[in-house]
Amino acid sequence: MITRSPNEFEKSKAQSPDLIDEIKAGLVAILGDRISDEEAIRRHHSKDEAYHTAMPHLVAFPNSASEVSSIVSLCNEFRFPLIPWGAGSSLEGNAVPVQGGLCLDMSNMNRILRIDADDHTATVEAGVRRKQLNHELRHTGLQFPIDPGADATLGGMAATRASGTNAVKYGTMRENVLYATVVSADGSIMKTRSRAPKSSAGYDLTGLLVGSEGTLGVITDLALKLYPIPDSIITLVCTFDSIPSAIEVVISAMHYDVSFSRVEFLDGSMMAAIAVFQKQAFSALPTLMVEFAGHKASTQHARDQFSEILCSAGGEIISSADTQEERSILWKIRHNALYAAINLAPGKRALITDVCIPLSSLSDCIVETRKDLDNSRFEAMIVGHVGDGNFHTFILIDPKSNEDILEAEALHKKIAERAIAMDGTCTGEHGIGIGKRELLIKELGKSVSLMRTIKDALDPHGIFNPGKLFM
Amino acid sequence: MITRSPNEFEKSKAQSPDLIDEIKAGLVAILGDRISDEEAIRRHHSKDEAYHTAMPHLVAFPNSASEVSSIVSLCNEFRFPLIPWGAGSSLEGNAVPVQGGLCLDMSNMNRILRIDADDHTATVEAGVRRKQLNHELRHTGLQFPIDPGADATLGGMAATRASGTNAVKYGTMRENVLYATVVSADGSIMKTRSRAPKSSAGYDLTGLLVGSEGTLGVITDLALKLYPIPDSIITLVCTFDSIPSAIEVVISAMHYDVSFSRVEFLDGSMMAAIAVFQKQAFSALPTLMVEFAGHKASTQHARDQFSEILCSAGGEIISSADTQEERSILWKIRHNALYAAINLAPGKRALITDVCIPLSSLSDCIVETRKDLDNSRFEAMIVGHVGDGNFHTFILIDPKSNEDILEAEALHKKIAERAIAMDGTCTGEHGIGIGKRELLIKELGKSVSLMRTIKDALDPHGIFNPGKLFM
Repeated sequence: MITRSPNEFEKSKAQSPDLIDEIKAGLVAILGDRISDEEAIRRHHSKDEAYHTAMPHLVAFPNSASEVSSIVSLCNEFRFPLIPWGAGSSLEGNAVPVQGGLCLDMSNMNRILRIDADDHTATVEAGVRRKQLNHELRHTGLQFPIDPGADATLGGMAATRASGTNAVKYGTMRENVLYATVVSADGSIMKTRSRAPKSSAGYDLTGLLVGSEGTLGVITDLALKLYPIPDSIITLVCTFDSIPSAIEVVISAMHYDVSFSRVEFLDGSMMAAIAVFQKQAFSALPTLMVEFAGHKASTQHARDQFSEILCSAGGEIISSADTQEERSILWKIRHNALYAAINLAPGKRALITDVCIPLSSLSDCIVETRKDLDNSRFEAMIVGHVGDGNFHTFILIDPKSNEDILEAEALHKKIAERAIAMDGTCTGEHGIGIGKRELLIKELGKSVSLMRTIKDALDPHGIFNPGKLFM
Repeated sequence: MITRSPNEFEKSKAQSPDLIDEIKAGLVAILGDRISDEEAIRRHHSKDEAYHTAMPHLVAFPNSASEVSSIVSLCNEFRFPLIPWGAGSSLEGNAVPVQGGLCLDMSNMNRILRIDADDHTATVEAGVRRKQLNHELRHTGLQFPIDPGADATLGGMAATRASGTNAVKYGTMRENVLYATVVSADGSIMKTRSRAPKSSAGYDLTGLLVGSEGTLGVITDLALKLYPIPDSIITLVCTFDSIPSAIEVVISAMHYDVSFSRVEFLDGSMMAAIAVFQKQAFSALPTLMVEFAGHKASTQHARDQFSEILCSAGGEIISSADTQEERSILWKIRHNALYAAINLAPGKRALITDVCIPLSSLSDCIVETRKDLDNSRFEAMIVGHVGDGNFHTFILIDPKSNEDILEAEALHKKIAERAIAMDGTCTGEHGIGIGKRELLIKELGKSVSLMRTIKDALDPHGIFNPGKLFM
């Protein structure tokens, strides 16, 4: 049921029902058989990892920026919604075509255009996936470290301003996209910036595109920062008797300039679920997985410094690893978290929240959130990239139960609003998509009107991913 | 002589010459005696560190965001140009009121609003200067490391997307402003973002404001990232027999993940000028000043690793320092660079260029630039933040000689165009201001139209710092 007002295309279509055929013919002229209206293909592009679903009218598979340009011009002429599509791994319905239209599947645009090792940059088409890039980099001594978990496309990661476990050391996509080539609403192809390491040349269009969730234009390629692969990586798993003591150790270590590459938090419920899933005897205690990466002298110093802080706070190191093999085993704890959660309740899905708050309020925020979860009728776990103040809850719901969905959404809203009240955000890394549009207004107020003004100026007919970010 | 078309205010004024009096009366109602049309005050606000000069009609000294809001609304109503003013230390005429109007001097808004040590953030009014902030931080163990040289205001540094010697470790203002409070054209006061360490909540308005040179709104306060003061800092001064061998060492060290906090380059001419100025026997050789900052284990390791790379490339360490006192003495070399240059030719001024290119092209770019300088009739020196690919030339000109200005500007254009051809930028950290508007188009082409679309949408009457960034 459409409760929103119809978009420009829907108004025209009401008067001319053959419009889709006309658009399809135009797209065939550009793409030949790389355009589809087959049910199965449309269905594949109707949902991401969240529970929102909506079918596109058509799915296109462009091979080049110049094809994307022709497609955008055509869509702009017909006011036909156009939704860029990466790997479908987003979590907020970010790429779900809620108003129908054309899904622009970027998977054919998966060429690594250049690797400039001396510059620590790689230029890739938007459909390149992060694992593919790192595989290609394997002989250079360099890596692209941003890791949101899923093997997402780099275009999609840019559009969502993704981050993940490594952000505490390397930043998010905001800090790691040097420039993007973008197709704007009139079909123009443009580069947002030079490949210089820094620049004061005009508005930061790169930053504007990164995190815009496909609502301002189509990213066709992008230049990324690369980093040397560290010589030495040390991982520790530590337990604490309370959430505050775990978070206090993180804050204290940061105060002493302990250089983390990862700081992951898992609460007692999460560790209990992992113990079941991995058949290991983990205690159901607040747990940190921390990692130090760099030269051996630095990582050893960081480990020693951290251990000292940890001990004086009553924490306990339960495992440590400094070889690739051992570390992989330890990191299974974190990588299995979502599966371990769902494993507890087969048939259920996890509603995933994504708040991020200043570190000084993080402990209170997690403790209060845990209380909310305990007071609800759901099983729920907390995991967090706490070095960045970011944590997720996995709220296990029956996706067929309206009651579950409504109650979990109310819980999500409460958790997000608390974070906002603590000068935090309702989304650290998953984006606004469909479900957080009201929260965005609650979080940023008048700034959202400013965003809307920019949207309307750059996409006057509202073709780019309509129904996202804004109400 | 105005060769541009008149702005909206000038058109109205042609019909109603008393308009300035009317505006002044409106401003007196808001600010009392904190508004001035005195010649001396206007003259003080007519120029920055570049040679562009233009008088504002009026100068205002607001005390609060709410006063700024009233002022912006008034200016918007009268289409009266409004130019935010920090310390006047910009280098591209960024804050020179080329179309007259109201200069908004932010010096009264110099309160440090809050320091959140656990969050590593400080929230300051736009008129706070960076030294003032660091002085206030002295008991916290934290610092705000971005240092453009001048004791600029933090609002001005944000507006210019400033950086300086520390950017190789800490990034530029782009990476270090968490959010800004901004007054938009209709007088609305809004925060661009939460204070969370990272966020995926909508468009990156913070990034859009940072580097916008006052053309999109007035920044009234901003939240900044802070960093622990390093335990150990080691500085080395090294000479090389050629420019390429100096740059090659930097690239090689970065490949081996040597963590610099500063990498400054000074060419032979620059070192010769400093030798005269400081009365020291420096050789006129390409020189690097490098610094490592962090825990002692890391800085010592970095020094050893760098020394090894340096030796195998034939470089020579001529000085090293690891105490604050010794380091201050060494850094005089870099801090005195501009004075040393001008000292060679009393009465002359330096035209300062500011290109930034990918590191792989940096050596070629510096070598070719040096040839251009040698082939010109000017004395000129090169200094650079080469860890970021950024370098400046100081071209000594007689500011009263039109011939000098024209020839130096032609040289500047040639240097900037070469950097652009190497996928670099005409400005790494000084901004576009007045003199690089054509270069911006050469560098970014159609993207500049996109920037212009954003400008027109957010500032429909063109009141914010008109005549900057765009032709």
